[in-house]
Amino acid sequence: MPQLTFRGVPADKLLTVGEALAADLAAICDCGTDNFTMDVLQTISVYGGSSSDASYPFVEIGWFERGQAVRDRVAEAVTARLQEIGIADSEIAFRVYREDSYYINGVPCS
Amino acid sequence: MPQLTFRGVPADKLLTVGEALAADLAAICDCGTDNFTMDVLQTISVYGGSSSDASYPFVEIGWFERGQAVRDRVAEAVTARLQEIGIADSEIAFRVYREDSYYINGVPCS
Amino acid sequence: MPQLTFRGVPADKLLTVGEALAADLAAICDCGTDNFTMDVLQTISVYGGSSSDASYPFVEIGWFERGQAVRDRVAEAVTARLQEIGIADSEIAFRVYREDSYYINGVPCS
Repeated sequence: MPQLTFRGVPADKLLTVGEALAADLAAICDCGTDNFTMDVLQTISVYGGSSSDASYPFVEIGWFERGQAVRDRVAEAVTARLQEIGIADSEIAFRVYREDSYYINGVPCS
Repeated sequence: MPQLTFRGVPADKLLTVGEALAADLAAICDCGTDNFTMDVLQTISVYGGSSSDASYPFVEIGWFERGQAVRDRVAEAVTARLQEIGIADSEIAFRVYREDSYYINGVPCS
Repeated sequence: MPQLTFRGVPADKLLTVGEALAADLAAICDCGTDNFTMDVLQTISVYGGSSSDASYPFVEIGWFERGQAVRDRVAEAVTARLQEIGIADSEIAFRVYREDSYYINGVPCS
């Protein structure tokens, strides 16, 4: 964690900026790059996508709360990397996990 | 947004009612149909699905809070359209996004 | 519900422990095994996975709040069953649904 889950973004394109984005985010969040995961969800758009079968570009970022200043900078960095691979428009939602409800190898984080 | 994410629902069947459902929801939410997205998640059911490999029909609706009256009507409309394509039983969960944690093209919604 | 959604876990391996896990969880939650669903999300890892294209093993558990004691035991049971199929490291996040925002066949749970 933070855990970035993408839809409507081609995995092969995202792969070309994955390491650079992890470096951006590690600098912003002041942590190691190995904290981050990035996955692309396999979806089929049935309405309102960016093309006939592609979902609208959307990123969910699951993490523990880091406050608005960090959140703004993370959103800017993700948006910029998506623009770099040709995705002009995208939306991002942050999802806050509770530490007492997040378990690593069966042990809660609080 | 609102963003509807389905699992356990065949995309080809959903496609046949997608436009009608968007019209239903736009009338209920008093917004344009172009606000909505509908995606089908690719999943494999390993337990408790509606058939051997199909997930139990489930819809997550991500949006900003609109209150119970609107929520009830949205749930009824989605359920009715699923029944129209042969899905008798389904469950729906609403997920409320915080406006300060939702970004469009890198800019927060509040 | 509870609804378990896995990523980074092979469906065919999970299938071998699905029934046993449902029995574990039904005993912990004091409910029937038919309350549970388990789905594997199809994802492509672009960064930080457990291997080149596999996502890091992660489980989201959506349910109504049952308190920390039950939550801890559920997390332990899921972690143990994953270890049984060779997944040494995994993370689990619980996601709490609001009863007034969860609908079964169009009817809210509260």
